[in-house]
Amino acid sequence: MASTLTSSAAKLRKGQKTRQQILDVAADIASAEGLEGLTVGNLAKALGMSKSGLYAHFGSKEDLQLAVVDLARQNFEATVLPPAEETPKGLPRLYTLLLSWADSIDRSTYRGGCFFAAASAEFDGRPGPVRDEIARLTKAWIDLLVDGCKSAKRLKHLKPNADAAQLMFEAHAFVQEANWAKQLLGDKTAFHRAKRSIHDCLERAATAKGKKSLL
Amino acid sequence: MASTLTSSAAKLRKGQKTRQQILDVAADIASAEGLEGLTVGNLAKALGMSKSGLYAHFGSKEDLQLAVVDLARQNFEATVLPPAEETPKGLPRLYTLLLSWADSIDRSTYRGGCFFAAASAEFDGRPGPVRDEIARLTKAWIDLLVDGCKSAKRLKHLKPNADAAQLMFEAHAFVQEANWAKQLLGDKTAFHRAKRSIHDCLERAATAKGKKSLL
Repeated sequence: MASTLTSSAAKLRKGQKTRQQILDVAADIASAEGLEGLTVGNLAKALGMSKSGLYAHFGSKEDLQLAVVDLARQNFEATVLPPAEETPKGLPRLYTLLLSWADSIDRSTYRGGCFFAAASAEFDGRPGPVRDEIARLTKAWIDLLVDGCKSAKRLKHLKPNADAAQLMFEAHAFVQEANWAKQLLGDKTAFHRAKRSIHDCLERAATAKGKKSLL
Repeated sequence: MASTLTSSAAKLRKGQKTRQQILDVAADIASAEGLEGLTVGNLAKALGMSKSGLYAHFGSKEDLQLAVVDLARQNFEATVLPPAEETPKGLPRLYTLLLSWADSIDRSTYRGGCFFAAASAEFDGRPGPVRDEIARLTKAWIDLLVDGCKSAKRLKHLKPNADAAQLMFEAHAFVQEANWAKQLLGDKTAFHRAKRSIHDCLERAATAKGKKSLL
């Protein structure tokens, strides 16, 4: 009984590990060739697995796409959020969050750069569950940034007339632009530019108290 | 002889018109489903034409993709540049150029919004002639904006310390962000936000003389 359980647990662990390995390769393919370019066939080839082996993990192409989106969400949460959670609330936390996001994309090992930028450009014209999930996650991220901005206003780190939605429109734009310029034009200064623009846009909206956290 | 020429000219006009009609439909498909989603097969289906009829116009999928990119370039030049050419040099021209670009994307009838944004996200990880052409055209557009900024500095519409490349990084980012937010999140305020941010970023860098052209 014990050995059966051990063996089942080992199989399960092996299964989970394989699923994770599959998803890592799938996310890399999807970042460069698009989620639509991610087929059970070319993924099996990249992994040296059989198609039937893959179907045991993912019932359909859409299941596979949704699993890749979920992996990207997990990676995002594990990379971008922790540095901010360790930083004092208000403007310091918001600034850390934005820089940590920019760094995570700049250091991305995916061939296609930011997974969500590539996926959203690909799926914005394709209605369905994959598009809905990408939009939901992206909207949640922008809402989190706007909430961070409002918290910074309450703590008097940002001026009372600072427009949280407009500020975060700009800060979000700078990081997406840097990803685009680096990926398409090979612009190595792009993330440096984005960070400078983020700093300047927060500084303009900051109070004297808030400015100290941007040094 | 005369009637043969007339008949050949009519055929040529018919051929050219058909090529143009094909490309309009192809660009719409490509904006929503990607240039890679644009195949001779699905384009023939959308047009109610035979595949062989299409191959008479385009020898390969790559030829078709490059022709669609060239059509997008022509549309861009015909829509975005004329309003600026009628505006005085310096900051007025640069500001008109940016607003005219934003409007052209906001009013785009393509399902996928800005053709170049969709195409660059799709092709940044796919080396080859299509990617090279998209990068070349996009780079030329940014260079034109930076040149416009430098001209505005020479005419003392922008302050001597204005950083042309950084300003255009920001302005370009706002328009791309608006396209993204409208397409993915259905954000109807996005282009309004982008224009406000463009105005404010130019105003901060403008001299008293230059500010008059931003009213």
